[in-house]
Amino acid sequence: MSTRADWSGLFAHRAGLRGGEELAAILAGVPDGVLPLTGGFPNASTFATDVLGDIAARVLRDEPGLALQYTPVEGIASVREYLSERQEALQGVRPEALMVTSGGMECLALVCSALLDPGDAIAVEGPTYLGALMAFRGAEADVHEIPMDEDGLIVDAFAEQLEGGLRPKLLYVIPEYQNPTGRTLPLERREALVELCRRHGVLILEDVAYRELAWGAEPLPTLWSLAPDAVVQAGTFSKIFFPGVRLGWAAGPAEVVEQLAAAKANTDQCASALGQRMVEEYGRGGHFESQLPRACELYGSHWRALDGALRASMPDGVSWTQPTGGFLTWVELPAGLDAMELREAAVEAGVAFVPGAPFYASDSGASTLRLSFSALGEADLAEAGRRLGSVIADSL
Amino acid sequence: MSTRADWSGLFAHRAGLRGGEELAAILAGVPDGVLPLTGGFPNASTFATDVLGDIAARVLRDEPGLALQYTPVEGIASVREYLSERQEALQGVRPEALMVTSGGMECLALVCSALLDPGDAIAVEGPTYLGALMAFRGAEADVHEIPMDEDGLIVDAFAEQLEGGLRPKLLYVIPEYQNPTGRTLPLERREALVELCRRHGVLILEDVAYRELAWGAEPLPTLWSLAPDAVVQAGTFSKIFFPGVRLGWAAGPAEVVEQLAAAKANTDQCASALGQRMVEEYGRGGHFESQLPRACELYGSHWRALDGALRASMPDGVSWTQPTGGFLTWVELPAGLDAMELREAAVEAGVAFVPGAPFYASDSGASTLRLSFSALGEADLAEAGRRLGSVIADSL
Repeated sequence: MSTRADWSGLFAHRAGLRGGEELAAILAGVPDGVLPLTGGFPNASTFATDVLGDIAARVLRDEPGLALQYTPVEGIASVREYLSERQEALQGVRPEALMVTSGGMECLALVCSALLDPGDAIAVEGPTYLGALMAFRGAEADVHEIPMDEDGLIVDAFAEQLEGGLRPKLLYVIPEYQNPTGRTLPLERREALVELCRRHGVLILEDVAYRELAWGAEPLPTLWSLAPDAVVQAGTFSKIFFPGVRLGWAAGPAEVVEQLAAAKANTDQCASALGQRMVEEYGRGGHFESQLPRACELYGSHWRALDGALRASMPDGVSWTQPTGGFLTWVELPAGLDAMELREAAVEAGVAFVPGAPFYASDSGASTLRLSFSALGEADLAEAGRRLGSVIADSL
Repeated sequence: MSTRADWSGLFAHRAGLRGGEELAAILAGVPDGVLPLTGGFPNASTFATDVLGDIAARVLRDEPGLALQYTPVEGIASVREYLSERQEALQGVRPEALMVTSGGMECLALVCSALLDPGDAIAVEGPTYLGALMAFRGAEADVHEIPMDEDGLIVDAFAEQLEGGLRPKLLYVIPEYQNPTGRTLPLERREALVELCRRHGVLILEDVAYRELAWGAEPLPTLWSLAPDAVVQAGTFSKIFFPGVRLGWAAGPAEVVEQLAAAKANTDQCASALGQRMVEEYGRGGHFESQLPRACELYGSHWRALDGALRASMPDGVSWTQPTGGFLTWVELPAGLDAMELREAAVEAGVAFVPGAPFYASDSGASTLRLSFSALGEADLAEAGRRLGSVIADSL
C-alpha cells in the first residue's frame, strides 16, 4: 500500500480547530515514579462495586427487552421519571423537560449541534473546562471569555460586555468547584447572573459536574433552579456513580431539550439502556445516600493533605484556590514564571501538573496551573505538594 | 412562567434539516392488536442473557479501575486488540486502525464531524438507511442518490455521475441485507466499486450493521477487506450482542480513524468501559460462535413465514426482495399506489409497515414500503402478511 491515498485533504474545516493536542497531553500518562496531580478522573475507590455487580446481573437477567434493547432517544420513561424526582429532591424544582445523555460532555456537544452555527458568539468563564472549549471551537463558535476572580465569574464584567454590544447565544458556566479553578459562584452572583441573562436573552448552559462532591460547605441553589426558564443544566453521573457507563442528564426549557434529543438521534441514538436501568436501581435503592458521603469524605481528606503540603512548601508569591468540593485547585505563580516551561522540571522532580494556559479561550494563563487531588492518597499528595513547592522555589 | 422566553429563535440552521418526524413516526408504537412489521430492533430473544449477567458482575467486581472508569477515546487497548483479531478472523485483513464507537450510528456522526463541511457533496444508495440520511442532512451535506436494482447499488450509474462531474467526498453504502431493501451487493460489483472509488478519490463509508446475520448464503468479502486503504467500515454490536450497551467499531485508514477519535473526544469522550470489557469477555469466551447461529436461525425462520404469507396473499403486480440475511424486505406496489396513504388502512386492518419514501434522498419511492420480520414470531408474521395482502388487494 505504498501508493495509497492520503485522505487528510478531505477533512472538514472544524477538524483543524479542536486543539486535541492539549487534551492528549493532559490525559497522557506520567513516567513511573512521577506523582500525578493531572487527571480529572474520579477515584475508583468511590465506586460502589459491591452493589453494582448485583444490580447489573439482575437487570440483565430480568429485563432483556428493556435493559438490553434500544431506548427512546430521551431515555427510558421510568429513568427520566426517577431523574426528574431526584432533580426536584436535590434542587427544589421539577424539570419542564429532562433527557438522559451519554455523559456530561455529550450534553455540551448536543448543545453545539442544536444551537451553534459557525461564527455564533458564545461566552465562557476564563479559564474554563478544556473539553468544552474544544467542543465550542469544533462548532466554529466565536468564543468570548469573561474574567473570573476568587468568587468565580465576574457578573459585572459580563454585563459590561453585553452593554458593549456582545450578543452571545449562550453562556457556559460551572458554578461549583469549577474545572479548572475549584471556585464556587456565590448566591448573590447567581441571582444577578440569571437576571442579567434573562434581560439580554442569553441562554445559560450550566455544568454541574462536581456539584454533588460537596465536602466543605452546603451547596448553593443551582442556576437552573433559580431560572429553569433560562438555563439548560448539564449533569453527569461520572463523578458520583461511575464513568464507565456514560450517563448524564440535560434539564431545561422543553423546546431546547427537544432539539438536543433531535441531535442525539443523529449520534448515538440513545444512552445505554443497561446503564440507565442501573443508575435508576442504584438511586431508588438509596445507594447515593450511602456512597456519596464516603466519596466526599475521601476528597476532603485528600484536599487537607495537599493544602497542608502546599502551605508548608510553597514560596511566597504563589497562591492557590480553596475549594469546598470536587477535587481541583488552581495555582497562580509569580508573574514571569511560565507553567508550561516549569512542567519538565516538575516531572524530573517527580510531580506532574496541568499547565493553565490551555484552559483559556484567550492568550492568558501562562503563570497558572491546575492540580487534581483525586487519584493520589494522602501520603502521596503530601509528597507531591512538597516536590512541587521545591521546583517552584528553585525556579524563582 | 407565562412570559418565559421562547428559545427557538436560537436554534442552529442544521436543526431545521434533520427531518426527525419520519424517524419518530417509524419508531412510534402501534395500537394494541396491530401487528408491527415496522421496527428495526433486533429480537430480544437473541440476546445471551444467561451469560451476560455473569460477565457484567465479574468485570464490575474485579476491574473497578478499568471497567468502571473513563477509557482512552479510541477504546480500551485489550478491547481494540480483540476487535482487530476478530476483524482479521472474519474479514481476512488486520485493520491499519480501529477504534471503538458508541454504536454504528455514532460512527456515521463522527464521519460527518470529521469530514463534512456544509455544502460538501456525498453519495448514498437510493433508498438508504434513514438515520444516515438524517445525519448527512444535519451535516448540511449535498446528498446525491445513486440508483439501485435487485443487486444493490448500480456501480455503472455511479461511474456515469462521477464522469459527469460529481465530486463526492464519500459514498455511503450498506452492502449486505441493506436497510431498507434487504439487498446484497454481488462480488463483481464490490470489486468494480472499490476500483471506481479509488480512481476518483472517493472515500467509501461501508456500513456492515446486518452482515453477521447471514442465514441464507455465505457472506461476501467486505468492501473494506477489498480496499482497506479506501474504505472506512462502520460496524455495530447492536444486532449481534445487544443494543443496550451502545457499542460498535470504525476500521479504516489511520489518518481518518484518528480524526474520528478527535471528534469523539468532543462528544461522549469514550464508549462505555463496562460495555467494552463485556463484549471482549463475551467474544473471547466463544459466545458469538454459540449465539449467532441461533439468531440467524430465528431470522431465517421468520423470513420463511413472512415470505410464504406474502406469496399466498399478495395480488399480482406487487413484488418484494429476497434477502439472505438480516430482517428486512422491501415491497414495491403497482405504480399509482401510495404507501403513505395505504398506511392508515393497514393499521385499521391490523398491520403496520414503514412507507418507503423517507428512505430516499430524492423525491422517489411513493409506491414502496419496508417490512421488518425481527419482532414477530412465525404465526404473527403469517397473519401480518395475510392482512397486508388483503389491504393492498382492496386498494387496487
